[in-house]
Order: sequence, then C-alpha cells, then structure tokens
Amino acid sequence: MKLGFIGLGIMGAPMALHLINAGHTVYVSAARRVPDAIKASAAVPCATVQEVASHAEVVFLMVPDTPDVEAVLFGENGVAAALQAGGGERKVIVDMSSISPMATKAFAQKINALGADYIDAPVSGGEVGAKAASLTIMCGGEPAVFERVRPLLEKMGKNITLVGGNGDGQTTKVANQIIVALNIAAVGEALVFASKAGADPAKVREALMGGFASSRILEVHGERMIKRTFAPGFRIALHQKDLGLALQGARELGLALPQTAGAAQLMQVCAAHGDDQLDHSALVKALELMADHEIG
Amino acid sequence: MKLGFIGLGIMGAPMALHLINAGHTVYVSAARRVPDAIKASAAVPCATVQEVASHAEVVFLMVPDTPDVEAVLFGENGVAAALQAGGGERKVIVDMSSISPMATKAFAQKINALGADYIDAPVSGGEVGAKAASLTIMCGGEPAVFERVRPLLEKMGKNITLVGGNGDGQTTKVANQIIVALNIAAVGEALVFASKAGADPAKVREALMGGFASSRILEVHGERMIKRTFAPGFRIALHQKDLGLALQGARELGLALPQTAGAAQLMQVCAAHGDDQLDHSALVKALELMADHEIG
Repeated sequence: MKLGFIGLGIMGAPMALHLINAGHTVYVSAARRVPDAIKASAAVPCATVQEVASHAEVVFLMVPDTPDVEAVLFGENGVAAALQAGGGERKVIVDMSSISPMATKAFAQKINALGADYIDAPVSGGEVGAKAASLTIMCGGEPAVFERVRPLLEKMGKNITLVGGNGDGQTTKVANQIIVALNIAAVGEALVFASKAGADPAKVREALMGGFASSRILEVHGERMIKRTFAPGFRIALHQKDLGLALQGARELGLALPQTAGAAQLMQVCAAHGDDQLDHSALVKALELMADHEIG
Repeated sequence: MKLGFIGLGIMGAPMALHLINAGHTVYVSAARRVPDAIKASAAVPCATVQEVASHAEVVFLMVPDTPDVEAVLFGENGVAAALQAGGGERKVIVDMSSISPMATKAFAQKINALGADYIDAPVSGGEVGAKAASLTIMCGGEPAVFERVRPLLEKMGKNITLVGGNGDGQTTKVANQIIVALNIAAVGEALVFASKAGADPAKVREALMGGFASSRILEVHGERMIKRTFAPGFRIALHQKDLGLALQGARELGLALPQTAGAAQLMQVCAAHGDDQLDHSALVKALELMADHEIG
C-alpha cells in the first residue's frame, strides 16, 4: 500500500521502518527531520506533508502534542490541503500521537468533512515497544475504518483495541496515564512509609505482591525504586505532558481530578530538581526529598 | 494447645472458631461480648482477660484500634497482670488487630520486659477471608517465635509472611492500605474522566487490563464501580481508620503522604454523604459528586 508517515522521532522512526520492511511504499516529508535510518531505507521523500498526503492512502502521524497534530493536518501545505484537492480513493488519517481527546473529536470531524476517514490510535510501550513492534494501541473511530488499517497497526503493535468512536482512543490513553502515575505515587508513598518506619522495603513489597495491593507498577516500578534504577523507561517529562492532557481535559469537561493534580505536582518536584529526564518511577525521589529519607 | 482469643467480633469470631475446630482449647473473656457461635462451641469462658492470659500459652488479639490493644494488654485485669504473676512456659502475645506500628514496637518491648514474646500479625482479606481461613497475614517479630505460632496462623490464613522485627507486620499492613486506597482513587479518576469524555468505561477498563495500568484494584474494584455493586467488601469507615494510622504514623515518623491525605479526604466526602458503610470502591462516588456525573 501507499502510506505516509509524519513524525519520525524516537517512536515514529522505528514504527515507520516496520511498515517499510513489510513492503509498503512509505512517503515522508523532507521538509521535516528525516533520521538516517529512514534515509537509508526505501522511504520516498516528498517536498511537503501535503505531497505525502496526496500520494498516500493512509497517513500516520506520530508527533509530540495537540498543536503539532493541528499544524500537520490543517497548517500550510498540510494534510487537509491534499484532501481538498479531492480525487482517488477515500484516505485514512491515523493519529498515533498522544493528544487531547476533545481536540481529536474536532479534528476528526473536520477531516470527515473533507471526505476522509480518521482513527485516533495512541500507543503505550515506549521506545522499546516501538522497536519491538509490541506497542499497545488504543483506537477510536468507525469499525470499518479500523478494520481497514488494523493490518498496518499489527506491524507496529500487539495489543490493539477499538475502544469506541473518535477520541475514545485518546481518552483511554489519558486514563492509562492517570492510573500509571497514581499507582507509582501509591507504591512510592507505601515504600517511603515502610522504610522510614524501619522495615525493609524489598520485603514489604514482596509481602504485598499477590494481595489487593498487587499491580504491574508494584512489580516493575516498585523494584526500580528499591534498586534505584531510574534510567528511562518512560521519562517524567513525558508523563508530565500526559497529566497535562488529563488536567486540561478535566477542566474542559467540567470534572475534578484531585489525585492526578497531586501526582503532577510530585513530578514537578522532580523537575525542580533536574530529574525530569529520569524514569517516572523516580517520582519516589520527590517523596524522599520531602521526608528527608531515602528508601533502602 | 491452650490458647486465648480476645476480640470476638466479625473477624475474630470465625478466626477463633478455626482454632477451636482444630482441637485447641481456646479461653475467652466472659467480661467481653461473646457471640452465640462461640458460646455454642468448646470455648472456655473466663472472668477476665487476665484469667485468659494466665491459662493460655498463646494469646491472640483481634480488636479495633491501638487504644483497644493497649487496654487489653496493660489495662486493669489485662494480659500484663497475668504475665507479672510469672511461672510456666514463656507465653506469646499475637496481635492480629490493625494498629500503629510505632505503638506496636513499644507494646512489644513492654511485653518482652515481662518475660513474654510478641508477634504483630495484622491481616487482610476481610470477613470473607476470616470465614474461609484464607487471610493474608503480615507478621513482625523474632523468627523463632514466629515459627512457634505459624501452625496456629495457618489455621486462619494462607499467605503468611514474616516481614521483619516487631512493628514490621503493622507497617506492611499500613503500606497495603495506602496502596489499595490510592489505586482505588486512580481507577476512579480514570473511569470518571473516560465516562465524562464520552467513552464507555467498561471498554476503557478492558483495554487497560494487561498493560501497565493493570492491578487487582482495576480488576475487582473497577468492575464494582462500573456495575455499581457497592455492598461491602471492605467498608470505607474501616479504610478511613487505616489511612488515619498512615497519616498519624507519617506525622510521628516525620514524612509526608500527600496522595494518601488526598484519598482520605475523598473518603471523607463519602462519609459526609452517609456512604461510609459502603465498600471502599464507592470512593468513586466522591469523584462523581464533584464532577456532577455518574459513570456508566
């Protein structure tokens, strides 16, 4: 198939390579940064995003944030300019970036009005998952459109779910990031309490596994806190952006997320101490700083 | 063996019955409430706790809170009075109540000074676990003493761990209750966000299972939130008491638990609306109230 891929960063480049290696013709924009691995591949450079979208049947986006998606879609020489030209088969835009669910709904409506389809498909699994083609992909959109792009998504991920209509993929990603952040804070507070009370946090963690306190975070991030292995993983700076989507979304939707707001502040304590490039399990360092006590 | 059991409430009565049914002679205090199931059993009534402790080699406590344990141990006609009398084999006090880790260390020292041993052994698993003899039991104390009482604990629970010295069992229980409360709040905020954003919370929960957001709480309590099955389970009022142990302990130890404090306040929102006898998964109702939106 003729595909487009916009956003060839740490995540996007290996994802695009999986599509290229599967034998698809992948158009990329030479007006944007093109990493060496893509230059050395069979990827076809185009002058602009508009040109990419004019060639491609399916255009993938993997850019940092909501304004970046907006610029790629509706900016000068963007995707929308190619759609307005019309002609050919109905195209699909697949946004794999993690952005605002509400903005996604608006973007999808505008793309639909231009005669194209839209799937929001944010991922979790990080750079490791992108390279291993083992990403979890949370999708929103029409079932028929989802089925059309599913074989392509399967080249990049393993656990691929259509949650509902447009925006629901992004909503699920936000929900995921809320739970992950709050579960990290939970394990952090429990282990700092246990350590300061004189117990061995490693033994406490073991005793809690298998009970109601058990979670993937207690398993993976609890161990990182105890072993002090804070190399990312998933960086605090990125999780801060995702909690920003949650808190801004809550404001737009009219709801309160007091615990998420608290966890975001703990990450800002880390950022204030220059730790925002560490793995998000390093949130425990904010609690340790506040307690003047390091666990273990 | 000759055993004592003080605290024959919803938890203590079925636990004592397991020991009686295993063929032990269990002494109980007739000065305290004795439920019919115990009256109908082979339990031996005594006039006071002191008399119970004078007969028993191992005395179990299962009372509501720190002052209750203190009263049973060191109050008038209490356990300590029997120990001061001396004579016979070295007795063991096994406190299965959920109380302050710091007070526990002080109690254990005083009991040791009277020539007896002490194990703190709080449980999780609730009334269901007490009846089914499937409690998780988190212990603190000397290994040799733990081994002496382990066969008795095995009549009441399944997952029995010696975490460390006296107090470490209670510390582990507090850590457990911190994580459980914060994971409930995490799932609550994620599902309220998802629902208010227009997604189906049941589908969002399913999409999140198996990823980094996965936890026993997402599995069990997430389902309760969606299905609105708030019959306890574990009551908010009891979890409020346990978070009180965490926050009071943090104050004594000199550390901050900002997320735990937040979750405790959400439980107080439930209590303010008369919901403190519901299961702790009903914490989501506080978030729903604040959002003026019910999930599902």
